Amino acid sequence: MSRIYNFSAGPSTLPESVLLQAQQEMLEWHDSGMSVMEMSHRGKHFALIAEELESDLRELLAIPSNYKVLFLQGGASAQFSLIPQNLLNGKTKACYLNTGAWSEKAIKDAQAFCEVVVSASAENTKFTSIPDAASWVIDTEAAYLHYTSNETIHGVEFQNIPDSKGLPLVSDMSSNILSRPVDVNQYGLIYAGTQKNMGPSGVTIVIVRDDLCGNATKTTPPVFNYAEQAKNQSMLNTPATYNWYLVGLVLKWLKGQGGIAAIEQRNITKVTKLYQAIDESALYHNPVAIPYRSRMNVPFILADENLDKAFLSEAEAHGLYELKGHRSVGGMRASIYNAMPEAGVEALMAFMAEFERTH
Amino acid sequence: MSRIYNFSAGPSTLPESVLLQAQQEMLEWHDSGMSVMEMSHRGKHFALIAEELESDLRELLAIPSNYKVLFLQGGASAQFSLIPQNLLNGKTKACYLNTGAWSEKAIKDAQAFCEVVVSASAENTKFTSIPDAASWVIDTEAAYLHYTSNETIHGVEFQNIPDSKGLPLVSDMSSNILSRPVDVNQYGLIYAGTQKNMGPSGVTIVIVRDDLCGNATKTTPPVFNYAEQAKNQSMLNTPATYNWYLVGLVLKWLKGQGGIAAIEQRNITKVTKLYQAIDESALYHNPVAIPYRSRMNVPFILADENLDKAFLSEAEAHGLYELKGHRSVGGMRASIYNAMPEAGVEALMAFMAEFERTH
Repeated sequence: MSRIYNFSAGPSTLPESVLLQAQQEMLEWHDSGMSVMEMSHRGKHFALIAEELESDLRELLAIPSNYKVLFLQGGASAQFSLIPQNLLNGKTKACYLNTGAWSEKAIKDAQAFCEVVVSASAENTKFTSIPDAASWVIDTEAAYLHYTSNETIHGVEFQNIPDSKGLPLVSDMSSNILSRPVDVNQYGLIYAGTQKNMGPSGVTIVIVRDDLCGNATKTTPPVFNYAEQAKNQSMLNTPATYNWYLVGLVLKWLKGQGGIAAIEQRNITKVTKLYQAIDESALYHNPVAIPYRSRMNVPFILADENLDKAFLSEAEAHGLYELKGHRSVGGMRASIYNAMPEAGVEALMAFMAEFERTH
Repeated sequence: MSRIYNFSAGPSTLPESVLLQAQQEMLEWHDSGMSVMEMSHRGKHFALIAEELESDLRELLAIPSNYKVLFLQGGASAQFSLIPQNLLNGKTKACYLNTGAWSEKAIKDAQAFCEVVVSASAENTKFTSIPDAASWVIDTEAAYLHYTSNETIHGVEFQNIPDSKGLPLVSDMSSNILSRPVDVNQYGLIYAGTQKNMGPSGVTIVIVRDDLCGNATKTTPPVFNYAEQAKNQSMLNTPATYNWYLVGLVLKWLKGQGGIAAIEQRNITKVTKLYQAIDESALYHNPVAIPYRSRMNVPFILADENLDKAFLSEAEAHGLYELKGHRSVGGMRASIYNAMPEAGVEALMAFMAEFERTH
């Protein structure tokens, strides 16, 4: 078949131009005589790829020079355990905002290392909202405040930077990094898996302020010790070289799109019309409070769940795939990251309207 | 330029047919409408890739059914810390054989978790030999005996399975896995980074006997807890999906080559003639005791180190790359993993002979 519209929550669709370039360079990168995946990570060719990767990310996110940028393995999930190991620095508490399934996982894993203060929880709304900041309980003895900037499963996104009352602010941005501007200066640490807005899976980005590096516990594996990896340009061990290259291609594509300010406008255009179509329909419903709706992940339920199966199979017949919602919330979910073209969202909306008319 | 002979120690050369297939399937895998790197790891297409990956590895290595096979992130280096966390199970000691740079790293990282008993060390030979087994001091109170089956930097390889005196035997096989038959039954745990004999970097294979799963400390990150990942088919979090696919292609290529028994014969043929050429030359010298010479990594020094630079640049002019030895041992190193064709070794030998004649 031809390439379809893929609404997967991650790994997710990539720009076709990135795939075409990777395809063209598969057997030989530039004039190197070898594929990127065959290159020594210590060699001159890969050094160029690594340097451009970091400089492009620094440019796109306007990362200040007092922040280290690390490219690790293990996924954001590994960081759930590694952040406390690197940041507690002798403290015994950390604050977490609980806004959905990914916050919950981060909290659970951190509890092996410290007392977790849940500063706020949206559990009582079934994670369809974010508690008002006035109600948050932030313990100033804590080492940091952690939050998940976009909840991939529940479709909830912070539209502003939380006030951490002076604590280092730590954010899992796996599912909305590079989709909107972010003032890195407001953060102690930002981390993200790459498999949504940055490329294939297999790389974890950690952006960490200098003063938070160097305090890892002695049982933190060296390859996950931020200071050690920073000293070694994330090459204390063999990195996932081909994945770095692919992330680099996605960053170049994003620069070609006009950078983050431009892609944000396109993301707003895409998601605004999709939520409007859902809200105006009698069949589809999005349960999330309007101010906290995600631009990246749009969950929606059908008024009659007996129609779910027909919706999914007819969607596939229209070239629209991976629309099934996460099992924990049911219904549907359209993930529309940077690489999902507006035409894909329009095709989805057209199908949804037709399906509503015919069922 | 055209594709060159790449003697990199890792990441390293891959079979051209694997690259060609990956190139062909880059934009669409089979009839899926998407690239492998865009697939949800929970979807039906990737499920097929994952199943074949595990079954092909089980078939090639004849892995018994009472062993779990995990595909993790973080590299073998992460396992240096994760093995004690998973295997100590309340014990306070572990035994290590010290046969080179990689053993040393494994020992250093394990020391954060337990008392390391160095059962034998070849340090006094500058890691050019392996101490006789009769001299090993194995503490039967230890949780396991660890060794590095092939030392990539020093070019030292165990030709037989060490006698662990009843301790679970743990081996870092990063640089010789799949190059020769191995009786998995003799091991408690085998681990390997993929970037030498199995594909690109970014995947870590862990083959672990059932009874050694389930004893991780409570601070072991769940994504690195063997029992948790075994329960979840290594998908507790998003795996490095594209890397799994590429490793799968390399395993299919290996099966097409006749499997491990056949590739071992080819490896013996390649390496025997290369060592013979070195031993017969007046210019080149390999310092490793003959019974312990590696089939995968052939270090050699030139009688006059002032010729090193000329050797490397003239080698490149002959299409022979990445021959510089590791900085810790100097000289040259030819890594000739499974994917290095015999023609590459012959081209290297012809160049070495010519260089010796002309210098």
